[in-house]
Amino acid sequence: MQNPFFENKGPFTIKEILNILNIKVNNLNSLKEVKDIKDLYTSTNTDITFFHSKKYKEVAKNTKASFCITSLVLKKELPTSCIPLVVDNVLVAVSKLTASFYPDALNDNFDDSVKHIDETNFKGKVKHGNNVLVGENVIIGSNCLIGHNTIIEKNVSIGNNCSIGSNTVIRNSMIKNNVNILDNCVIGKHGFGFFPKNNKNLRYPHIGIVLIEENCEIGCGSTIDRGSMSNTLIGRNTYLDNQIHIAHNVKIGENSIIAGQVGIAGSSIIGNNVKIGGQAGISGHLKIGNNVEIGGGSGVIKDIPDNTKVMGYPAKNIRDFLRENK
Amino acid sequence: MQNPFFENKGPFTIKEILNILNIKVNNLNSLKEVKDIKDLYTSTNTDITFFHSKKYKEVAKNTKASFCITSLVLKKELPTSCIPLVVDNVLVAVSKLTASFYPDALNDNFDDSVKHIDETNFKGKVKHGNNVLVGENVIIGSNCLIGHNTIIEKNVSIGNNCSIGSNTVIRNSMIKNNVNILDNCVIGKHGFGFFPKNNKNLRYPHIGIVLIEENCEIGCGSTIDRGSMSNTLIGRNTYLDNQIHIAHNVKIGENSIIAGQVGIAGSSIIGNNVKIGGQAGISGHLKIGNNVEIGGGSGVIKDIPDNTKVMGYPAKNIRDFLRENK
Amino acid sequence: MQNPFFENKGPFTIKEILNILNIKVNNLNSLKEVKDIKDLYTSTNTDITFFHSKKYKEVAKNTKASFCITSLVLKKELPTSCIPLVVDNVLVAVSKLTASFYPDALNDNFDDSVKHIDETNFKGKVKHGNNVLVGENVIIGSNCLIGHNTIIEKNVSIGNNCSIGSNTVIRNSMIKNNVNILDNCVIGKHGFGFFPKNNKNLRYPHIGIVLIEENCEIGCGSTIDRGSMSNTLIGRNTYLDNQIHIAHNVKIGENSIIAGQVGIAGSSIIGNNVKIGGQAGISGHLKIGNNVEIGGGSGVIKDIPDNTKVMGYPAKNIRDFLRENK
Repeated sequence: MQNPFFENKGPFTIKEILNILNIKVNNLNSLKEVKDIKDLYTSTNTDITFFHSKKYKEVAKNTKASFCITSLVLKKELPTSCIPLVVDNVLVAVSKLTASFYPDALNDNFDDSVKHIDETNFKGKVKHGNNVLVGENVIIGSNCLIGHNTIIEKNVSIGNNCSIGSNTVIRNSMIKNNVNILDNCVIGKHGFGFFPKNNKNLRYPHIGIVLIEENCEIGCGSTIDRGSMSNTLIGRNTYLDNQIHIAHNVKIGENSIIAGQVGIAGSSIIGNNVKIGGQAGISGHLKIGNNVEIGGGSGVIKDIPDNTKVMGYPAKNIRDFLRENK
Repeated sequence: MQNPFFENKGPFTIKEILNILNIKVNNLNSLKEVKDIKDLYTSTNTDITFFHSKKYKEVAKNTKASFCITSLVLKKELPTSCIPLVVDNVLVAVSKLTASFYPDALNDNFDDSVKHIDETNFKGKVKHGNNVLVGENVIIGSNCLIGHNTIIEKNVSIGNNCSIGSNTVIRNSMIKNNVNILDNCVIGKHGFGFFPKNNKNLRYPHIGIVLIEENCEIGCGSTIDRGSMSNTLIGRNTYLDNQIHIAHNVKIGENSIIAGQVGIAGSSIIGNNVKIGGQAGISGHLKIGNNVEIGGGSGVIKDIPDNTKVMGYPAKNIRDFLRENK
Repeated sequence: MQNPFFENKGPFTIKEILNILNIKVNNLNSLKEVKDIKDLYTSTNTDITFFHSKKYKEVAKNTKASFCITSLVLKKELPTSCIPLVVDNVLVAVSKLTASFYPDALNDNFDDSVKHIDETNFKGKVKHGNNVLVGENVIIGSNCLIGHNTIIEKNVSIGNNCSIGSNTVIRNSMIKNNVNILDNCVIGKHGFGFFPKNNKNLRYPHIGIVLIEENCEIGCGSTIDRGSMSNTLIGRNTYLDNQIHIAHNVKIGENSIIAGQVGIAGSSIIGNNVKIGGQAGISGHLKIGNNVEIGGGSGVIKDIPDNTKVMGYPAKNIRDFLRENK
């Protein structure tokens, strides 16, 4: 869980954290400091973590975090080195605390720090169109092109030899060398993640970024949302066609080819050398193996092992699909 | 059928109306004035209405309109207080007459009345990005943000605490408090409604608006078309993900959650607390009840009662769908 | 295969062509000149053509080209008037040679030749919004409207009485009279065509254009890619709703109606008077007849004869679909 872009407002003392979560816990050293909030895997003894589902029991047993937001039922799974902070709704509490550590990751209002590119250090260094805006904390490599009306908001790193189209908005993203992003895309906004609540949903922060590896192409009108606690990743030499939607935390491997209007829901993991036909949809939290081929229009609702061809809704082995539909 | 935005060029005399419709009716007081054209439900005795399908027989019997555009077959259903104007094609005649009452509602050419926001009364009052344009008859509440290159065309009302993204176009819309509309959206253009005609289709006017209630969020790259004779409505605290298309006259209830790339065809009505998975499609003129859950990728082609979970294409009870597709 | 827009850098001598393809062929007149590269149908005796699949055997037998890039297996089908140039991968070789003839058709970087419209000959002649840019080799007819932030890149011809929306990008396209193109579209970029290659896919040139005939309407957020070796065509009086994707080389007939979020994959041919419901998808290289109706959400994976109504995924006769799904 690297976090190059969002400023950590921590550390917070345990006293401050208990206040934020609006809970009381006895026998705690209220002055102890916590540096960061991380997931069960990556947290160290200076961090607080969270544990909200039995699914993560084995990981929880081995967490190195000193504190953990969890429930009454789950707290017994934690090691003695990790002090449980019991709350009613773990994810809501995590959201609140993450928003305290990373307040900038909560909303996605337009970036009012941007300047016309010719009023920045990139003047004369980046070939650009009319009305190009660049925010703070932006890096742009050599030999890049940026099209008309495109907005590179704060917290963007672009490698060498990249070509960005017109009318595109990019924020909170790391783009490697030789990447093409075409017109009218939105890259790096927060994902569609919130806690439903009558009358006023509760947004949670998205502290992940969008990471696009070398040699990728992103088609016109596509949207790639940044991750919530991890990154959204497009692997090396993967090509996306037009009007594709990649949700938060999705990770796509290398050398994959994704045709127009495909949608991939949150947190799914796609392998290398995967081919996805037009308008196919992939549900959230799935694992699609390497060398998988998914027919156009398919609706994938379960994991797909390596080297498999599927089609249909729900997607099944393509031979079965074609035989049943002769 | 409120109409806050389109200017009514009426009243017209009966003589003028008969001319517009290119018909002759004997024994009419040709100087009598008609103030507006409305549907069977909402018209009063100063209005003209229309009646084109048996489906509306019961409503027609009780209409308060003084005149009604209708067919030879249907005219007998009207009350004696309502004088029938018989035409060959009711909807084409309605379209022509509506275009005479509301000529501004016919085309959707770009708004050439807009000015840079700093040349308007909003200068210093609205926090805005670069190159923001604002048209005539626009209201913007307090504490609003408007992103770069966004165009608020004429006839838009925006409440307090709203955040509008970049590269978005809004027209003929009423947006209540605390609404977020993200980047690259188009809100309020006319719907995909016209009379097919070889060589040159005939567009009909769209005199409805888009109404977005408090606390909503509209994702990037979404399109919400305004209504033809009624409004398109997004209910309070309903969240739309990216690349969603909402057609004309659709009404969505409160506290609903609609995932990426969903499409809802014209005039469908969606209840409260509805969850719609990614890429699902809903046909036109359907009624989806409250507390309905529609699985991702579903194709809904009939009404769905309250408290039902459906999935599939065509969508059926989700238990049946999963059992049949094990 | 007309090519009004991309400059032909030929002729090339046979010696130069053999160098580009990195092959050796004995007994050729190395100084003989080749003027153009064309397909089997349209090439003349001053052109080079290509023949990569048995499917085109009958056409190959009658080609008028003097030279043909082909494979060891296929070369025997060519007439004696056509000298085969045998390569390992025909399409990769064609791509290389086409890129030599038409280097400008290979990439789609933003057009840096554009100027503000008021700095061009169109000043005072075209009614336009704020921040409109126009490139080289652009024609705009009388009585046209161009919305805010729209970019007419190089190689565009627009007829009379056209209305282009805001935030739209157009390039390499020919648009006839009375066409409406709404907001946030991208028209004329290269198609999603390349040779997959680990680590770095190989793009091939797109020397076709987008041709939109009279009286068409293209909805908001739509993308229409230009053709590779032929044109992408939208027939007279055909209307497209919002968020539609039309891939390269697709040809759509006259008087067709295509609802929101439809996608048509590469090289498919759609007839006249065709109606396609929302979110339907059509696979590549298919032939859809005249007067066909395709239900919303359908996935079409084979040809459809004239006068047929289909629905489902895969699409079948609509009566069968509805009966099986009662």
